Amino acid sequence: MGEFELIRQYFHRAASGPGVREGIGDDCAVLQVPPGQELVVSIDTLVEGTHFLPQTPPHRLAERLLGAAVSDLAAAAATPAWLTLALTLPQADPDWLEPFAARLAERCHQLGIALVGGDTTRGPNLVLSAQVHGWVDCGQTLLRRGAQPGDRILVSGTLGDSRAGLETLLYPDTPSDTTDWLQQRFYCPEPRVALARALRPHLHAGLDISDGLLADLGHVLQASHVGAEVELGCLPLSDALCQRFPEQAQNWALSGGEDFELCLVAPEQSVERCLQVAAEQGVRLTSVGRITAAQGLRVLDAQGQPQTGLSAGYDHFKEMS
Amino acid sequence: MGEFELIRQYFHRAASGPGVREGIGDDCAVLQVPPGQELVVSIDTLVEGTHFLPQTPPHRLAERLLGAAVSDLAAAAATPAWLTLALTLPQADPDWLEPFAARLAERCHQLGIALVGGDTTRGPNLVLSAQVHGWVDCGQTLLRRGAQPGDRILVSGTLGDSRAGLETLLYPDTPSDTTDWLQQRFYCPEPRVALARALRPHLHAGLDISDGLLADLGHVLQASHVGAEVELGCLPLSDALCQRFPEQAQNWALSGGEDFELCLVAPEQSVERCLQVAAEQGVRLTSVGRITAAQGLRVLDAQGQPQTGLSAGYDHFKEMS
Repeated sequence: MGEFELIRQYFHRAASGPGVREGIGDDCAVLQVPPGQELVVSIDTLVEGTHFLPQTPPHRLAERLLGAAVSDLAAAAATPAWLTLALTLPQADPDWLEPFAARLAERCHQLGIALVGGDTTRGPNLVLSAQVHGWVDCGQTLLRRGAQPGDRILVSGTLGDSRAGLETLLYPDTPSDTTDWLQQRFYCPEPRVALARALRPHLHAGLDISDGLLADLGHVLQASHVGAEVELGCLPLSDALCQRFPEQAQNWALSGGEDFELCLVAPEQSVERCLQVAAEQGVRLTSVGRITAAQGLRVLDAQGQPQTGLSAGYDHFKEMS
Repeated sequence: MGEFELIRQYFHRAASGPGVREGIGDDCAVLQVPPGQELVVSIDTLVEGTHFLPQTPPHRLAERLLGAAVSDLAAAAATPAWLTLALTLPQADPDWLEPFAARLAERCHQLGIALVGGDTTRGPNLVLSAQVHGWVDCGQTLLRRGAQPGDRILVSGTLGDSRAGLETLLYPDTPSDTTDWLQQRFYCPEPRVALARALRPHLHAGLDISDGLLADLGHVLQASHVGAEVELGCLPLSDALCQRFPEQAQNWALSGGEDFELCLVAPEQSVERCLQVAAEQGVRLTSVGRITAAQGLRVLDAQGQPQTGLSAGYDHFKEMS
């Protein structure tokens, strides 16, 4: 089977959506950003052996790739629009391509994003890059900068589950509902698109948590030239995490990475409204701390004492070199 | 060195340009498509061992990657605007990153494209994906469809040089000016952006030649539901190619691939004007054949007789599996 045949056969099903004048099949996709909107763009790569275990089921890779990429759009408070895909595969294997493409199309549909182009190449190692495009009312993209002293730090969902899910894959144990749920959290991020869009008018800054709360909050602090205090006792932890990994739960919530939840910064007077909006959407939203004028990031225990010796977030080159 | 440090250090220099509200450093790049323009997007991947030889100098990879990607914008008659980069590297090696990033920044500047985002990951094999964005007056993107019987087929520059350049890399011989020139053609494509934009009003269809003239013209024919005749004696061949590889020259011009020249289709009455515009730009433009109502692609010799047994263009999976 030829490369072009392959692309047409497997990926055509996801190739339509708003603003798509030409999807897959020409040299470029031709797209129309609606008037009054700015375009936001992000690219994410998954590498076999670095970001996922060899033999990961292809439908799981589709979920993971798309969830992580669209989460960057949520982080910008954008509406998802278009996806392009660069796939490097050891071989054109229908048994891999079919479930990957099927689940990708399904998730694209659920997340409201259209596959509009891509490049499929042969290489010794599986590498998947997803570039996502979205749009936001001009000037309304949520950025990392803008946090002000006194602002509250809000976190969506629960933290640390993804790291726990990975643990159950690395060291398989008796299967259980808890394991399934944690692995689902690892494999299939649910980007908080609707929440981010609804909260946007009330926020000063925000991002998604891909490298761990401490590392990502650190990016907000750096971009905003402020500091922060996080209260250890306030971290939102799932029952599954606490039950299965009680000793690691807090540390993974701080530094586990790949949660793809949102870390948002709102002025004190908007917090009540934010919590209300989240509740209406059925999404957990938790205040975990506060922005400070004093630089640096302090994690406080129940007695208000700063903790030390906490590990920073995940960094491919830092951790692996 | 951490991943983020690395990105900041090496790639920040290319991160500004028209329409860039936020470049590298936030979750998403924030971009503004000018009013009245449509957005065109393309993604291209280079894999070590598949698209380039191991030990290819990093500055050459930057040229090759960007040239090939921007050529897709030229194929759409678009104005280059923004680049995002997904790099998978075996290690964060400054001796590789520094010359790669320096030449990338230089070529970005020359081609008028701004690096606005990216993702840098660790993997066993070098993989580079470039996604390029450009814009075109609404409705004016040059597509593969639209060729009509009687139209002429025009080709920019010369064909087959890139394949010849690869040959001199695979089977090194005595270095010479000819070798240098052919390798330059292989490594450093010069996307025909200005030519495509100037010719756009006179064209019915077009694309860039990345898989070989026969394969790519085939895409135009398929999209336009027409056939074509190409005259073997009209193929634009460089002196360097004819001198160094006289026996392979014609075949490589038809099927060599990776020339990144344009294959354009214009109505008969516009050909004179097209040739004039190209001459004003100092770019060779050659009529190589004609669109026919009869389906299929025929290559005619000097006596007007169809040739048979010509190889099709390059297809990663077709050729390598």
